[in-house]
Amino acid sequence: MIKYGFLGLGIMGNAMAANLIGADLDVTVWNRTKAKCMPLVEQGASLGASPGEVTTQCDITFAMVSDPAAATSLFFDTGGVLDGMGPGKAYIDVSTVDPATSQRIAEAVKAKGGRFLEAPVTGSKKPAEDGTLVFLCSGDESLFQDASPALAIMGKKSFFFNQTGQGAQMKLVVNMIMGTMMTAFGEGLALGDKTGLTATDILDVLAQGPIDNPMFRLKGPQMAQNNFATAFPLRHMQKDMRLALQMADEYGQPLFTAGAANNLYIKERLAGGADEDFSAVLKAIIR
Amino acid sequence: MIKYGFLGLGIMGNAMAANLIGADLDVTVWNRTKAKCMPLVEQGASLGASPGEVTTQCDITFAMVSDPAAATSLFFDTGGVLDGMGPGKAYIDVSTVDPATSQRIAEAVKAKGGRFLEAPVTGSKKPAEDGTLVFLCSGDESLFQDASPALAIMGKKSFFFNQTGQGAQMKLVVNMIMGTMMTAFGEGLALGDKTGLTATDILDVLAQGPIDNPMFRLKGPQMAQNNFATAFPLRHMQKDMRLALQMADEYGQPLFTAGAANNLYIKERLAGGADEDFSAVLKAIIR
Amino acid sequence: MIKYGFLGLGIMGNAMAANLIGADLDVTVWNRTKAKCMPLVEQGASLGASPGEVTTQCDITFAMVSDPAAATSLFFDTGGVLDGMGPGKAYIDVSTVDPATSQRIAEAVKAKGGRFLEAPVTGSKKPAEDGTLVFLCSGDESLFQDASPALAIMGKKSFFFNQTGQGAQMKLVVNMIMGTMMTAFGEGLALGDKTGLTATDILDVLAQGPIDNPMFRLKGPQMAQNNFATAFPLRHMQKDMRLALQMADEYGQPLFTAGAANNLYIKERLAGGADEDFSAVLKAIIR
Amino acid sequence: MIKYGFLGLGIMGNAMAANLIGADLDVTVWNRTKAKCMPLVEQGASLGASPGEVTTQCDITFAMVSDPAAATSLFFDTGGVLDGMGPGKAYIDVSTVDPATSQRIAEAVKAKGGRFLEAPVTGSKKPAEDGTLVFLCSGDESLFQDASPALAIMGKKSFFFNQTGQGAQMKLVVNMIMGTMMTAFGEGLALGDKTGLTATDILDVLAQGPIDNPMFRLKGPQMAQNNFATAFPLRHMQKDMRLALQMADEYGQPLFTAGAANNLYIKERLAGGADEDFSAVLKAIIR
Repeated sequence: MIKYGFLGLGIMGNAMAANLIGADLDVTVWNRTKAKCMPLVEQGASLGASPGEVTTQCDITFAMVSDPAAATSLFFDTGGVLDGMGPGKAYIDVSTVDPATSQRIAEAVKAKGGRFLEAPVTGSKKPAEDGTLVFLCSGDESLFQDASPALAIMGKKSFFFNQTGQGAQMKLVVNMIMGTMMTAFGEGLALGDKTGLTATDILDVLAQGPIDNPMFRLKGPQMAQNNFATAFPLRHMQKDMRLALQMADEYGQPLFTAGAANNLYIKERLAGGADEDFSAVLKAIIR
Repeated sequence: MIKYGFLGLGIMGNAMAANLIGADLDVTVWNRTKAKCMPLVEQGASLGASPGEVTTQCDITFAMVSDPAAATSLFFDTGGVLDGMGPGKAYIDVSTVDPATSQRIAEAVKAKGGRFLEAPVTGSKKPAEDGTLVFLCSGDESLFQDASPALAIMGKKSFFFNQTGQGAQMKLVVNMIMGTMMTAFGEGLALGDKTGLTATDILDVLAQGPIDNPMFRLKGPQMAQNNFATAFPLRHMQKDMRLALQMADEYGQPLFTAGAANNLYIKERLAGGADEDFSAVLKAIIR
Repeated sequence: MIKYGFLGLGIMGNAMAANLIGADLDVTVWNRTKAKCMPLVEQGASLGASPGEVTTQCDITFAMVSDPAAATSLFFDTGGVLDGMGPGKAYIDVSTVDPATSQRIAEAVKAKGGRFLEAPVTGSKKPAEDGTLVFLCSGDESLFQDASPALAIMGKKSFFFNQTGQGAQMKLVVNMIMGTMMTAFGEGLALGDKTGLTATDILDVLAQGPIDNPMFRLKGPQMAQNNFATAFPLRHMQKDMRLALQMADEYGQPLFTAGAANNLYIKERLAGGADEDFSAVLKAIIR
Repeated sequence: MIKYGFLGLGIMGNAMAANLIGADLDVTVWNRTKAKCMPLVEQGASLGASPGEVTTQCDITFAMVSDPAAATSLFFDTGGVLDGMGPGKAYIDVSTVDPATSQRIAEAVKAKGGRFLEAPVTGSKKPAEDGTLVFLCSGDESLFQDASPALAIMGKKSFFFNQTGQGAQMKLVVNMIMGTMMTAFGEGLALGDKTGLTATDILDVLAQGPIDNPMFRLKGPQMAQNNFATAFPLRHMQKDMRLALQMADEYGQPLFTAGAANNLYIKERLAGGADEDFSAVLKAIIR
């Protein structure tokens, strides 16, 4: 039986690991704050002492952390993932990081004889809980095949791209579109409010038209009531926008709309909404 | 039997009038270029000599023209709609105009004893042909009731807002969101292309996520092949963006994202895409 | 001796009229709020009963009001400027208005046999007081010649452009550059502040470089102390930005930088800074 | 007699080193492409074999390279600056780099017992030739004192900031303002051109007003003739804009105006203007 590791038990990682455990897989978990591991241990997981110990004991280890700095630290620090890498070992980073970070980790895994897959996900809390995430994978294709059963438990669909780094790039492209759609949506709600249109009417009209989508339907009614309960934290969306803009700068693609949107997220990040849902960018638009 | 008039037979007006005729209503049509009336006359419509003559002869007259200047001219010019207005007459402007223009026309209709409904539509060529438009009405509620059968032939849903001008405002809010979503989408496709992601892959990933929507599904594959066959002309979208931004300026709502998007539409409007589909803004993003 | 009229005694108009009176010219003043005329009457001006009465009595009448709506009302309303227009009469509008408004007034003056000059000014309170404004004139060149002595009292330099409307266009182009420079300056001060640089150091460094200019030197130290004493009201700058953007939209010139700047002015206009100096846009940048 | 080293002989470095040599200082030069050293050797400079050899032989070594990657490579590569660092040695980096790069180099110099000064300059080709640059220094204050005679030969003014990294931050703040002023200026020229105003008239009017500055006076007439002869390369300005925006993102300061400006530079960087003067951004504005 394949032994799975899972590192990083935030909103997303916790739900994903729980689904693996719920499917009776052999899972060893680790988190910087040990307390977060305990509910999963009660559900049947083993407890890892360090990232390196988890990779030493497991065949395939998943990691879900918040940003490139955390992913780098988790991997390269003393006691980190790299300690347990070697032939027969596999590492799947499902965090969203920049292509350079992904590249560095990929090379370090290969240098030790292991296999690496970058597999950032689209979807936030609810899809993580429901096992309906989407995985955007690139790297070692044989590992993609071997991990498919686990990916199918946590997600509804997995893509594989041949070029290393393309999983992360796809994630950034998609989240950049999503982040900018959200500020456009927020600007519409704010303008409507100023002119006397109710959010309910705006949402009803949108629901009849060609831009109707699950995000507007889910977030719209909550935003109309200033409910920004966190599914996807604003600071993570702002990080994704930043990484997408840096990638665009590097490749020479101007992003006028997304650039404006990013500034709105920066504004709200500092104004108190960093840990609220990314739809809280509405507050920066209205303020 | 109610006699209907229909003024303005562009892409939208032609399809809408054809649906009224196809439902065996009594319809008199008029268009600045007479030739465009002929196919509809062959389908059973009467031919009007001037806008004023149409309103003189009909109970309820619809108008669908391209911008505030055209709507004003159609109504106030010699031989225009106003000539035929009076008690028992009703005028429904389904064009998208700014609130001030709508207000001027509403007052002139009322001053002559007629009834007025502003009823801008959301939806472009295909929904117009399929009779699945959405009408955003405000003005005289009794006229909204009387016109409901005709609206139900041309559209799938009609909204009525109490405040005069709110139909037009709602239209601008919704189209502003749509126009900005399109530039965000275009920026994503352009960035993906530069980094080596295929449009097909991006569209597949988007289709799995929370921002999946009919517009991306319909336009995406066409945009990927540089097919900008006109459903909703770019210069009309740019006009709606402009009107939304002017409304936002008046009401004091900054629109950073939509403002950037509008500049992209202006760029493409001048660069040759004015009469192509609004998705041709992709060319301004890439160029 | 030429009889001069002066309509509109706000910050600018008051200082300009005072300079004409101080040069011993024969000046008749009028203002919507009569009280503002009194100090000038004490300095030797005559008091006009209405705009139309002033133009009836004077050879050359200047007008300085705040926006296109005010300029239109002043001219066309009952008792307005138009009442006194006729052969031998001249009207010089030194307000900043859009080209269409200027055009309408020009045609109405000519239709009555009078002469018209549009002559928007650059410069705010201090240059108005010091008689160092710059006039951007277009329209009737003989009137430009006849009015030159008066213009030379109020300003340091006058330009004449052959094409009607070019005075207003030049004003909008120049103020749009100025307004955008101010937000760039404000963004620099705000970023410096966040990173620990003092405004004094930033201003010292700017003063040594190629972008050193009187506006930074004058406003910088005031802005650093949150002193936004009004020289050029923010709502007027925002109006000029709006008119420039509308002109750019009409002519098909995207203005990405100026468009972003305009949104910052809109934000502060609503947030309380409308009547403060336009440098108060710094507050919208920081907030 | 103090022995000076100078590494990096591009447009800027060449002019700066020439001024040191012209003042009869003892200067050893090095450049990646050796040919560029020769004219300076003929003027009296010694030729260094590698960056490390220069720092080994000199007391105070200046470096002027194009970006953070080049600065890092120059310093840390085998045979690089670090090889010659030690007690009694001083290193002054006059390049514009991001704060993190500057910090890394500072720490490496100190760890070897040397002294470090970051001293990015404002001013381009002409001030470099004329010895009228401005140095924005932070780091070791005793080194700032010791280097003052050399700085006074190359520049007209030197600032010292206590906090390490503030020299680079100040440079980015000032260049970000300059870069955004340039796009505002370009947007004004482009809008003027579309409306029929001549660049000459616009420049004449600007010269009379509060935003008159040396950059507009110098670049304006050249831009009007599509002359973009390189004083400060566009790709360097774009790099500075990028670094300023990354700093702003980190510190939580939205930069709506500068963000839009940066996208214009990115557009022109890819469109062929990378090595032209940064005023070539005008082409991206017009295109």
